[in-house]
Amino acid sequence: MDDSAVARTRVGFIGLGRMGLPICRHIMRVGYELTVYNRSPTKAAPLRALGAIVAPTVRYLAEHCDVVLSCLDSVAASEQVFLDEGGVVAGARPGTILIDHSTIGPETARSIGAAARGRGLGFLDAPVSGGPEGAEQGTLTIMAGGEAGVFERALPILGTYGATIVRMGEVGTGSLTKLVNQLLTFVHGAAAAEALGLAERAGLDLRSLGEVLRVSFGQSRMLERSLARVLVGNLEAGAALRLYAKDLGLVADVGERIGASLPLTDAADRVLSEAVAEGLGDRDIAALILHFRPPIEIDRS
Amino acid sequence: MDDSAVARTRVGFIGLGRMGLPICRHIMRVGYELTVYNRSPTKAAPLRALGAIVAPTVRYLAEHCDVVLSCLDSVAASEQVFLDEGGVVAGARPGTILIDHSTIGPETARSIGAAARGRGLGFLDAPVSGGPEGAEQGTLTIMAGGEAGVFERALPILGTYGATIVRMGEVGTGSLTKLVNQLLTFVHGAAAAEALGLAERAGLDLRSLGEVLRVSFGQSRMLERSLARVLVGNLEAGAALRLYAKDLGLVADVGERIGASLPLTDAADRVLSEAVAEGLGDRDIAALILHFRPPIEIDRS
Repeated sequence: MDDSAVARTRVGFIGLGRMGLPICRHIMRVGYELTVYNRSPTKAAPLRALGAIVAPTVRYLAEHCDVVLSCLDSVAASEQVFLDEGGVVAGARPGTILIDHSTIGPETARSIGAAARGRGLGFLDAPVSGGPEGAEQGTLTIMAGGEAGVFERALPILGTYGATIVRMGEVGTGSLTKLVNQLLTFVHGAAAAEALGLAERAGLDLRSLGEVLRVSFGQSRMLERSLARVLVGNLEAGAALRLYAKDLGLVADVGERIGASLPLTDAADRVLSEAVAEGLGDRDIAALILHFRPPIEIDRS
Repeated sequence: MDDSAVARTRVGFIGLGRMGLPICRHIMRVGYELTVYNRSPTKAAPLRALGAIVAPTVRYLAEHCDVVLSCLDSVAASEQVFLDEGGVVAGARPGTILIDHSTIGPETARSIGAAARGRGLGFLDAPVSGGPEGAEQGTLTIMAGGEAGVFERALPILGTYGATIVRMGEVGTGSLTKLVNQLLTFVHGAAAAEALGLAERAGLDLRSLGEVLRVSFGQSRMLERSLARVLVGNLEAGAALRLYAKDLGLVADVGERIGASLPLTDAADRVLSEAVAEGLGDRDIAALILHFRPPIEIDRS
């Protein structure tokens, strides 16, 4: 896509959270005209300062853009933004491309895809991995489901914030891929907490342990991430535990529908429920280690 | 250690299995005089052809070496080789260094360490990660427990087949580190099978999935290893499933002794029991995917 194509393509973005905001900056950086919408409009202020147009409604945004992207935090939000009467599918002109980066599950993705096709719109379900850090750095992994032609037209925009961008197949396969990733991410995160908790109780030096595990078959990216946070005591906001409850629910839905047993996911899910009940829901997944640590004994003498 | 030190140090090795045999080749390659012992003596033939001395008994080997190494496949074998009347501890001259690469658990390691100290011998419990491939390539990870002075004297020999060699602390910490690694290795291996089984049933292309997961938070070394084997259909001998039963038993022992709950390990252990009952015990850990695949329906019409 040459400069004139960038100049001609009007991009819209809905959902300016910890993922959406940095993604928008990358899109604007290369010269796209960007229109944004967020339910709470104060979030749009930093982008308005950079020259973005702030749409008064989702419908206004849909009517005025060639490519509409979104990154929302619940299945209900995606359904509302895309499928409601005042939503993107109803408002977009035929030929517009819609891309949802939210984690919505394959069923919702297919519903939005079918509605979009019915109005002559392209649709990609394109969840991401990499978290807010990956969004800031423009190094997200993007797993997309949808027609090849739609995917190719979207690539120049996705490439402004994605380092690895893979078309997995038809609509729904992006979401399925994300759920498989979430399953592994959370099981590995829970296993890291269990293993580090055991190591702490047994008196092992966690820094030396990390040196060994990094080059052993026990290695995982989540272990490295959690251990780094445990070593500096940073267990606060990050990949908040309560957000995984929604994603693991979507994984369980898929498992049930296709008859797959998920014993590790189920065990990790029970750890999650207990950790949330213990008040860890807003903390990073690395805080799961607190679930495995012995309770602190308070000296009341 | 200069060449004359290599020439002066007589090394002994007990247990010439899929790990021990390639390790011995690396030790001989740099010029150490090597004496070997294996319960079944035919295993020693390839090393004899390279110039190794084949000891008639464990005791003979212990009496004639300055450093005695072992790599055995059960706790009972290590106890017998080191602690029996005709064993290494009874036979070695004071000042000899003993190193056990077997996965034996911290309790057994401390028993051997105490017996060795009582006779003026050094001891390291030094399990390895990397499997037969790592042993062949001389790129093993070695996690060692024991006195710093003993560790430093052992380093020149360990360096002939280890790429990462870490002293974790006193005797027992090498074994504890290995058990934490085994916990993660097996949970990640079971999670990989569960995730790939779900992906297959849902119709995802596993090669594209691997491309995404490799650069996502769901990444793990075991996932990469299992996926590579699943893609080429190589689910046979490798890291045989039944060997994990022993290691997970040692993990459970430690957990029970120090009061650590291990819900992910327990779930993975149940998967292992079921897979072994299904006849997968001698196959690679990647064969766990067969436990999660739908049974093949045989057309009997």
